[in-house]
Amino acid sequence: MNEARSLQIVGAGLLGTSVGLALARSSWRVWIFDHDDSSQSLAAELGAGQPGWIDGQPDVVLLAVPPRALREVMADVARLFPQATVSDVSSIKTEPQLHAETLAISDRFVGGHPMAGRERSGGAAAQADLFDARPWALCPSADSDAGRVAFVEQLVRDCGADPVYVDPERHDAAVALVSHLPHIAACAVAGQLRDADELAMTLAGQGLRDTVRVAGGDPTLWVDILGSNADDVAPLVERLAADLGELAVALRGTALESDESVNPQVDKAIERFLLAGRQGQQQIPGKHGAPRTEYAVVPVVIPDEPGALARLFTTVARAGSSVEDISLEHAPGHPVGIIELSVHQNQAEALVQALQQDGWAHH
Amino acid sequence: MNEARSLQIVGAGLLGTSVGLALARSSWRVWIFDHDDSSQSLAAELGAGQPGWIDGQPDVVLLAVPPRALREVMADVARLFPQATVSDVSSIKTEPQLHAETLAISDRFVGGHPMAGRERSGGAAAQADLFDARPWALCPSADSDAGRVAFVEQLVRDCGADPVYVDPERHDAAVALVSHLPHIAACAVAGQLRDADELAMTLAGQGLRDTVRVAGGDPTLWVDILGSNADDVAPLVERLAADLGELAVALRGTALESDESVNPQVDKAIERFLLAGRQGQQQIPGKHGAPRTEYAVVPVVIPDEPGALARLFTTVARAGSSVEDISLEHAPGHPVGIIELSVHQNQAEALVQALQQDGWAHH
Repeated sequence: MNEARSLQIVGAGLLGTSVGLALARSSWRVWIFDHDDSSQSLAAELGAGQPGWIDGQPDVVLLAVPPRALREVMADVARLFPQATVSDVSSIKTEPQLHAETLAISDRFVGGHPMAGRERSGGAAAQADLFDARPWALCPSADSDAGRVAFVEQLVRDCGADPVYVDPERHDAAVALVSHLPHIAACAVAGQLRDADELAMTLAGQGLRDTVRVAGGDPTLWVDILGSNADDVAPLVERLAADLGELAVALRGTALESDESVNPQVDKAIERFLLAGRQGQQQIPGKHGAPRTEYAVVPVVIPDEPGALARLFTTVARAGSSVEDISLEHAPGHPVGIIELSVHQNQAEALVQALQQDGWAHH
Repeated sequence: MNEARSLQIVGAGLLGTSVGLALARSSWRVWIFDHDDSSQSLAAELGAGQPGWIDGQPDVVLLAVPPRALREVMADVARLFPQATVSDVSSIKTEPQLHAETLAISDRFVGGHPMAGRERSGGAAAQADLFDARPWALCPSADSDAGRVAFVEQLVRDCGADPVYVDPERHDAAVALVSHLPHIAACAVAGQLRDADELAMTLAGQGLRDTVRVAGGDPTLWVDILGSNADDVAPLVERLAADLGELAVALRGTALESDESVNPQVDKAIERFLLAGRQGQQQIPGKHGAPRTEYAVVPVVIPDEPGALARLFTTVARAGSSVEDISLEHAPGHPVGIIELSVHQNQAEALVQALQQDGWAHH
């Protein structure tokens, strides 16, 4: 094995191209193939690797094709590269494992799933830093060669991601809950907007936008994902529908009551539903699965003029603050915007003082 | 009527206190009462107005109490201030209008609902700029005196908000769809996390966090809101549950099929569901109800060190870019973060050039 390891990426979409870009920061030598010529040359131009197939045998082949194409591509790759370690980036992990077993390559197959993505798809949306500090599930089987597993782990680390070992079944059950179910709920809510009039849309706030954001994802890809994980997803959707059905009954009960005699039993059912929701929401760890830290949020009014942000962050630097999150509320055509700076509780006072000294409006 | 108009706010929670803070930027003279002494004095200390009741008659009384307390407080206010214009900030508009009619004050009542809020409640979370550039629904009735309506509109504008006139019934139907239904869906999804193990939570990404964000809201407040608007909300929840039930049937059908013979009818049902979701999502206007503008998103790698943001925004200012949105991805303990800058398409090239010249890593 050479010092400079070689990787053949198959598929120049968002994930395949992003892996190539990420590894351009490392010593990996990368080739990137796509059956679509223009996707392949775009990826190469972006710097994701040399276009096409490697001349010889790569150390690792990474399958970054849609779930629908995975089986066939894995068969081709198994034949073309009989020594290579094979991994993939599909959202589902039991099916690729079965394919590998059918193809008798389970000793050299280590399934993977980077927990990163964007609403936009295709190589043009790729980012070298897409995986930085993100979890990347790794699902070796009992057959997987330990050296090859370590090799794929290195690839994942070189992409900037944090490997999380999990067996394929547990992975698929987990993503059904934390990824596929939210996607379905977002689509279900957004689908109700079909009859919305303009007035309703005028009253739409950030809550609606956040709740349905992921519904903007590629429907063709999601048909594959949901179809492949239907066993795990279907019971969760049924439970979700049942919980909503129960809530609807409670709401109908409330609607029947007069204001004066609200049935406390009915109110309790609504309250239990809302409490369970808040409890679940508060269980989610902070960004990137890191432990939730309570930050102080300092809102600052900023004028809509060139250099305002540069001046603001000069003040922030002077205060020695490490900004952990930024949120900008800025209405086009409005003379001011609001920027919310999240800092550790113990840095908040110094930041507020510095802002005051420099004349920033905040509270 | 004096030059300096007077406002009596009743209720020193998030909204009441924020109105007081917003009007501190104007010529309004503001009093703020809360039945809880410490809430009242906190609001006064924050600068939201003079504590307690006005000595005399205010021009306007703004009811900023929970929905549950509104009827009683409106009755008190009608008696205490027989000449004042009365408005409110409740999320539901038909019920307050009925109360006003029962109390025979519908000529001087103009219901309102600012489309702004936070997950945090209470006066300590108040912001002077909470309403800046946000829609504020105004729901005068046929009985409302035109001069008083204009007066409340001025109050809303002085808070920084954009008035949107709508009758109470249409308002309640609209918010059922764009606010109450998303809240319910977020709670329903978050509620499913009750059985989630640590691994599933480790794999949670930004999609889950965004989808369930609003579920963090105050359950007591939401029991009132949903209870008061149950007539409008219940049929929407039923339709949501029915759509999810249909999807579950399609998923069960897919799960039964072998991989080789996926039933195209079943796939079509899943695809229709996903397409309807994406279509609905794309119908939502941009921030603050402004027309959706396609911004270029420029991701930049920033080192986790003091002054990095100040240096970055100095480059941004030099490029003459007007930043419309900022998103920071920053994992604690990681040496670099990613900041995504959204700028108008026609400013993107200049920004990218300036970033290159100043040595910023981007793409």
